[in-house]
Amino acid sequence: MDLDLNFLAQDRFAALVGVRLVQVEPGHAVARLELEDKHLNAAGVVQGGAIFTLADFAFAAASNSHGRLALAINCSIDFFTSPRGRALTAEAKEVHRSPKLASYNVDIHDEGGEICARFTGTVYRKKDRVAL
Amino acid sequence: MDLDLNFLAQDRFAALVGVRLVQVEPGHAVARLELEDKHLNAAGVVQGGAIFTLADFAFAAASNSHGRLALAINCSIDFFTSPRGRALTAEAKEVHRSPKLASYNVDIHDEGGEICARFTGTVYRKKDRVAL
Amino acid sequence: MDLDLNFLAQDRFAALVGVRLVQVEPGHAVARLELEDKHLNAAGVVQGGAIFTLADFAFAAASNSHGRLALAINCSIDFFTSPRGRALTAEAKEVHRSPKLASYNVDIHDEGGEICARFTGTVYRKKDRVAL
Amino acid sequence: MDLDLNFLAQDRFAALVGVRLVQVEPGHAVARLELEDKHLNAAGVVQGGAIFTLADFAFAAASNSHGRLALAINCSIDFFTSPRGRALTAEAKEVHRSPKLASYNVDIHDEGGEICARFTGTVYRKKDRVAL
Repeated sequence: MDLDLNFLAQDRFAALVGVRLVQVEPGHAVARLELEDKHLNAAGVVQGGAIFTLADFAFAAASNSHGRLALAINCSIDFFTSPRGRALTAEAKEVHRSPKLASYNVDIHDEGGEICARFTGTVYRKKDRVAL
Repeated sequence: MDLDLNFLAQDRFAALVGVRLVQVEPGHAVARLELEDKHLNAAGVVQGGAIFTLADFAFAAASNSHGRLALAINCSIDFFTSPRGRALTAEAKEVHRSPKLASYNVDIHDEGGEICARFTGTVYRKKDRVAL
Repeated sequence: MDLDLNFLAQDRFAALVGVRLVQVEPGHAVARLELEDKHLNAAGVVQGGAIFTLADFAFAAASNSHGRLALAINCSIDFFTSPRGRALTAEAKEVHRSPKLASYNVDIHDEGGEICARFTGTVYRKKDRVAL
Repeated sequence: MDLDLNFLAQDRFAALVGVRLVQVEPGHAVARLELEDKHLNAAGVVQGGAIFTLADFAFAAASNSHGRLALAINCSIDFFTSPRGRALTAEAKEVHRSPKLASYNVDIHDEGGEICARFTGTVYRKKDRVAL
């Protein structure tokens, strides 16, 4: 799909972290993070906040993909393993959508294809239009 | 308490984001984030990932404060309002701790003292010692 | 406060389980469950569903206490210890409320006063009036 | 698979609610609830606690299916729509399993096949053997 990505391109925090939107279509999005030393925590593994930010960005893209502004109500994330390799991919899928609310599942995989974390997020859908 | 903060000072992602540990004692920690333009999302408000990273850092400090390595199993965050003012404070409190598991509540307030978000996190406690 | 409890008194599932509303006032509620053999799981401890139902009922009372119909969007529950004694008490407190959404914390204590579980719930607030 | 279901058959609370185990195999389980008036809440729709109990039972079956006792650490549930029809089905799938921890997704569908709720649960895996 040929969506305008200008809206999410303005996310300065995602840019700081290095999260990049790879794909977006209605109810679905993929984001990617090339891992660098700046993403590591005190234990030398990828910091939970970096993984959350990646997942949250895919969630934001998928939930705003219908052209209406979606605001996060809550999110949860389960951490399974420390990622291996040099990149993480997050894929957001819509689980349910009603006029006011919608819910998404985001799986985060490392370079070897192993699932490192799973994120769930719910949004409140406003009437404002958004050109994703 | 006079704890050695060297361990968490090595968190490079927290440094990138600008999260700073203000206080830590057994089962309790406070972290702070001075807000800058780099923390904003596409809608011009503080990005969820920045708020999560702040809360997660307070959670990491509190859960490692007993001197044993604590690994996050899962976290959830409820977003209430967009923060006002130029700084956020996150205060982590231990809700329950057993030998293997522990659970924390983290409230995030803005400069005006309003609660912006609430974070809950659970850790698995390893036997490794950590000098926080 | 002298609220009309007719609405929640019609909850047949709560009646089946044996959950009883003890107190309700705006943004706050307490519910109680006298433990019987019927609440036990295969391992001989109080079943998670019974604890959830108790917490959920206090949450429903607190979130409907403002006189507008509140529908649960999502709930999470952390289980800390197996309850001791013959009764559980759940106390729901409002953490944040906006016109459309509200969030509650529910702590579940056993007869000895130890915290057994913590529940968090978010509601969508409809315009329908409810006489709690 | 021909597993012995004696362990979960002893769950008195599940019996009270009417939850029935339909299928179980390593890392996977299906449970079913025939809806009756006793499952309704004050608003006349299926009570959240009944849906949770159904999902939690499928989760317990799947997480104990490897023959080691699994204790729930935490669970979350998203409610999407009020179920239609006279039965609910919950299907639990293992998302990740390590020696100490495991995580499950449980989707709850109504008789028409629509997803009504999604449940996520994490267990701590003890060394005790369990004959499911």
